[in-house]
Formats: sequence, structure tokens, C-alpha cells
Amino acid sequence: MDILARAQAAERAGADIIHLEVGEPDFPTPPGVIAAGGSALADGDTRYTPAHGTGALRAALAADYGARHGAEIDPERIVITAGASAAILLALAAGVNPGEEVLLPDPGYACNRQFVAARGACPVAIPVHAEDGFQPTAEAIAAAWGANTRAVLLASPANPTGTCLSRARLAAIVEVVRARGGLVIMDEIYAQIVFEDPEPSAAAAFPDVVVINSFSKYFAMTGWRLGWMVVPAAWVEPVRRLAQNLFVAPATVAQTAALAAFDAGTEALLQARVQELRQRRDLLLEALPGLGLEVQARPQGAFYLYADCTAHGPDSEVLCARILDRAGVALTPGTDFSPSRGRDYLRIAYTQSQDRLREAVERLARVL
Amino acid sequence: MDILARAQAAERAGADIIHLEVGEPDFPTPPGVIAAGGSALADGDTRYTPAHGTGALRAALAADYGARHGAEIDPERIVITAGASAAILLALAAGVNPGEEVLLPDPGYACNRQFVAARGACPVAIPVHAEDGFQPTAEAIAAAWGANTRAVLLASPANPTGTCLSRARLAAIVEVVRARGGLVIMDEIYAQIVFEDPEPSAAAAFPDVVVINSFSKYFAMTGWRLGWMVVPAAWVEPVRRLAQNLFVAPATVAQTAALAAFDAGTEALLQARVQELRQRRDLLLEALPGLGLEVQARPQGAFYLYADCTAHGPDSEVLCARILDRAGVALTPGTDFSPSRGRDYLRIAYTQSQDRLREAVERLARVL
Repeated sequence: MDILARAQAAERAGADIIHLEVGEPDFPTPPGVIAAGGSALADGDTRYTPAHGTGALRAALAADYGARHGAEIDPERIVITAGASAAILLALAAGVNPGEEVLLPDPGYACNRQFVAARGACPVAIPVHAEDGFQPTAEAIAAAWGANTRAVLLASPANPTGTCLSRARLAAIVEVVRARGGLVIMDEIYAQIVFEDPEPSAAAAFPDVVVINSFSKYFAMTGWRLGWMVVPAAWVEPVRRLAQNLFVAPATVAQTAALAAFDAGTEALLQARVQELRQRRDLLLEALPGLGLEVQARPQGAFYLYADCTAHGPDSEVLCARILDRAGVALTPGTDFSPSRGRDYLRIAYTQSQDRLREAVERLARVL
Repeated sequence: MDILARAQAAERAGADIIHLEVGEPDFPTPPGVIAAGGSALADGDTRYTPAHGTGALRAALAADYGARHGAEIDPERIVITAGASAAILLALAAGVNPGEEVLLPDPGYACNRQFVAARGACPVAIPVHAEDGFQPTAEAIAAAWGANTRAVLLASPANPTGTCLSRARLAAIVEVVRARGGLVIMDEIYAQIVFEDPEPSAAAAFPDVVVINSFSKYFAMTGWRLGWMVVPAAWVEPVRRLAQNLFVAPATVAQTAALAAFDAGTEALLQARVQELRQRRDLLLEALPGLGLEVQARPQGAFYLYADCTAHGPDSEVLCARILDRAGVALTPGTDFSPSRGRDYLRIAYTQSQDRLREAVERLARVL
């Protein structure tokens, strides 16, 4: 966010900044969704819905789990939320007590530590390594699990690395956590943006895993603030009560609009965008080694690359500031994602066109 | 919510239920707001805004504090949120540590206990009494304040009683809390719906009080999920960071639509609705004594009446179930708002037309 503010200040001063720092797709909300939102407004569809969301949207999501993941999910287990953020807050309120520990892969999404702290619980970093695809191993989780540990929050594909957790690895982790009476929360907000070897949702195989997802990324509905989770059957009633108490309900127009996200035309549009993102990733994967930026673990999805930048000095914050000032390219230092080793890395969000990415590569080549 | 579910089941079975149990205005979102939302969608206004909301909406709210309350509020101190719910969650995350105590008037809005518990903090009920207008006194707060107390969460007008806190009483409370280094959070989500002797917002006089408000009630924008708070100057930066981490941003289309909530035509419409609510209150205040339902403290605002129902038995839950089953009128037992003395009271939300309210009174007269 500091980089974003600095980039915006440079823009106000007339600079042409290439924004590769923000985790927001550059694609607009699909036109069918916009149209459905407009109709909902015209119909006066603006009152509270049930706290866990409309039956129509929960049914549409359950059908999508069937079509996309071959998973039979009872719509009653789906809870619609105000984005993945509210889903994670709810999952932690439902499953973790104040003072308990939650294991978080490091590097990982920076806000996760804040969600855990807001619950009054204790975030505990588990360092993950390039040779493991920047995903935790079952052994590492078993080793980190203490008497006071309650849950682990995973992500696949992960932010900032774009790497996925294989089904086999997840199964081993679930076994370790089950044996300790713990909870696995799986963030799948990028799960529909995977370029090779996609795994089905964790919801397809593990009914006791809390699965978080969102309309923000794949469906390009960031500003609508709409997400969901799939919860274990035993959580349905308590999570509905919690959702009622903590959030009243998710946004009504967004829920009606999102029903249009699943039609065939919209799905074709979204799949074309995934292919575009894949081309951007490939473009950068080819260019970065020549810039002295090493991508140590091949990203399979999302729209992020996490690159070792130690060839350019000991501190990614200094490097990102230098790149912004001299090349007009905004990148995120790894310190946003990893308190322990973030100085060695930076994140590139490829949320710009291929032309702009080529321009960014040229600019980087001049200053690095 | 149990009463709501039971009422809906009765409706499915063909019964005509008069819903006086839900805290949602029966008025639709003003047409100008709907139109502005439609335009925002057509313009593709669907990306993330800043975490604390758009500058335009914060400026509009600051201007409204000037016009409505004579209060000069720096727009930088305004934080737009996903409803008052997210505002209270943010205020507690920013101002209260896990394990600390938060004083809550009893009776009060049921969710407040859950907000505090979700923070890992401890809700502590302060019984408030009819003779004090169901609002706490400074003495009661001083007496309840302990070594581990951090904050008090007030509301004016309050839910379920509709009673207001006078400026003089609030000033005395603020003095007590300041002397103890504590925090006053003031819920003003009904502050624009006051029928007599309206007080200006607490924001007009107390720059260290966190003031919560919402577009849900006065502006009839429940399903849009949009609220705001006015925070002390020292909170601006930390609350923006917290909002970014915990919620990313409030809904974009709702923020653009809400800009239309302040035009003169919409304001005239909304003021006419306040007069309608006043007439409903007066209708019920006249009818209830004849039904053996005693309103012990005159409600000045919101759209609730809190009535002593002990003339009809020892348990308001039993009574509300009986009234629903025999009269088809859905009311809320006081136990939703007061663990200590809720069995003696019930809440009536006058969110139905005067004709329906008269019909409800006739039905109640037959069964009580």
C-alpha cells in the first residue's frame, strides 16, 4: 500500500506508472453480471437477504461445484459473505478461540495475520520453501503444531507465489490436522484461475475443511464485495447465527447479479481471460531470468509471480522504491508477505496487458 | 430470528402474519439512490475503492454533519464501512484488546455482545432502567468500570427502546470514561429518526467519541450494506490500515448510489417518512395501555416500542409465541435484548403501515 500511494503521487506529478502491485484483475465485471445488477436495482431488490445468502445463489454455487469440480455440495453448507474477507473473519470466529494459535504459511497473504489478530488469536508463521513449491508440508505442520494450536489457514493457488497445493499434499496435511482435532481453512479465491494440472476444490474431498472463495478474482467482481464459504455440516447453524450477528447479510444486488456469472457466455469470456493470464505469466517467466529475477517455483495460477531479487541488493523494499522511481514500474516488496525472508523477494501482479508487461520488462532491463 | 422463522412457516401454511419483529424499514430505497446505483453500474463503477471509502462520499457525509448537526467534521475522520456492523467490528478491533471488558446497556441490541465476543473481549451488561429512560447514567458507568474495562458502547436512539441519551447525560458519561482513559463508542444508526427534541450527533461535541452510523435505516438502504463511522483524529491512519486488512473496501456501487441520498428531493421524502413513523408511534402509544402493554419510557425515535408485558404472564417468549399463533402478529420477546429482565418485555417494530398497525392492535385485543 505504501508503494501504491507513492505510485499514485508520481502519477499526479505526471509520470506514466505501470501498476503491477495491486491484486485486482484489470478485466471489467462481465457484461451479463452488470446487466443483472441493473435489473435487480430496477426491481427494487434492495432489502436484507438471509444472513447466509439467497437460496438461488447458494444453489447456483452448488451446481457450479458439480460442473467445475465434480463435487456434490449440499447448498445448505454454502454461506454467502461480504467477500472472502468476511468469510475468513467468520471462519475464525466460528472455529478459533481467543488466545489459540493459527498456523499461516510464510510467505502468505498479509491480511491473514490481521484476521487472526482481530479474533484475539495468535498468528504463527510456518516458513515455506521454494523447493516445496512455497506450500507447507504435512511434516512442517506436524512439527509446528503445539498444545495451543487450533487451525491452519492454507491457500491454493497462493498469494504471492501463484503455486498450488497438490491433492496428495493436502490429504496428508488434513490427516495431520484431524489427528490433532484441529481445523483446516482453505483459501481458494484463485482456484478457478489455474493454468495447468488443476485440482478439484478441497470441498470435493474433505467435508471437514472450511473452503473460502470469492467473486472478486475469477468473476472480476472486486468492488461488489461478494464471497462465500463451504462449511462442514455441523457448522451450518452456528455460522448462520454468527453471520446474522456479525454482518446481518451480504449485499443484495451483488447476490442477484452474481446469478448471471454462471451462464455459458460469461463462462466462455472468463475462460478466455484465464488463457490471457496464462500468456502473461509465460511472457514474464521467459523474461525475468534475463533481468536477474529468479522465479524459484513455477506458479500454476492466480496472477502473481514471486521472484528472488537478491542479485540486485539485500533489501526488496529499497529495490522496489528504486524501480518505481527510475523505471515507473510499481512492484510489491516481499516484506508485505513474509516478515522472515521478504527482503529477498518481490511480487509481480500481472494485471496489465501483454503490451504493458513488455514495456515493463524493457524498463526493468534499463535499470536493473 | 426464531420468531421470524416461525412466522414464515405460518405464512407458508397460508396464515396472514403482521410482521412487527424485524428491524428493517418497510420503505423502499429512495428512487434517486436506485437511479444513481443503476448509472454507476452502467458506467462500470465496480472496482475497489480506497479502504476507507471514496472521497466524494466522505465529503458528502461531512457536509451532511454540517447541515444536519451544525458539526464541522473533517472528511478525513470519516470511514465508510460495510454497514454499521463492519464499523463496530472495526471500532472494537482498533480500540479494544482481547480479554478487556466492554460495557453494554441491558436491554440493548443483541448483536453487540457478539461483536465484543468475536474480538475476544468480554461483554459486561449494565442494567438500565425505565426511570432513566433505559439509558445508562454516568454513575452506573463509573460503578461498573473496572481495572480491565476498556470501552462502553452506547446507542441513541436505542434499540429496543427507542429512547435517546440527552446531551447532558452523554457529557457526564464522556467525562467519567475520559477520566479512566477509556473509549466511548456511540451507535447513532437511528439518529436521523427522532421525533422530538433531537440532539445533534455526538460527533458535534466529542471529538474523542467513535460515532457509528449507517445508510440502512433513515436512508432505507438495508441490503446495500453501507455504513460509516467518525473516528478521533489519531485513529485515522490505524483504522484505514485495519479496514484495508479486514474488509479491503466497502461496496463500490453502494457508495456511488449513496451520493444521491443527500439531494433536496430525497431529503424531503425521507423527512416525510420520519413523520409517518411518528404517527405510527403515536398510534401505538395510545393503543398499548388498553392492551395491558405498558411503555414505561417514552420512545423519541427509531421505530421500536419496548413494552412491559408482565400483565400477561411471566415469560415474554411464551407470550410472543402465543400472540403469533393466535393473532398472527409477530413480535420480539425482550429476551433477545436483555438476558437479565427480557422475560418481562416485548419489542414492537412499527415497520408496517398505520392500517396494518390498527389491524394488529385489533388482533392483539382479541387474544390478550
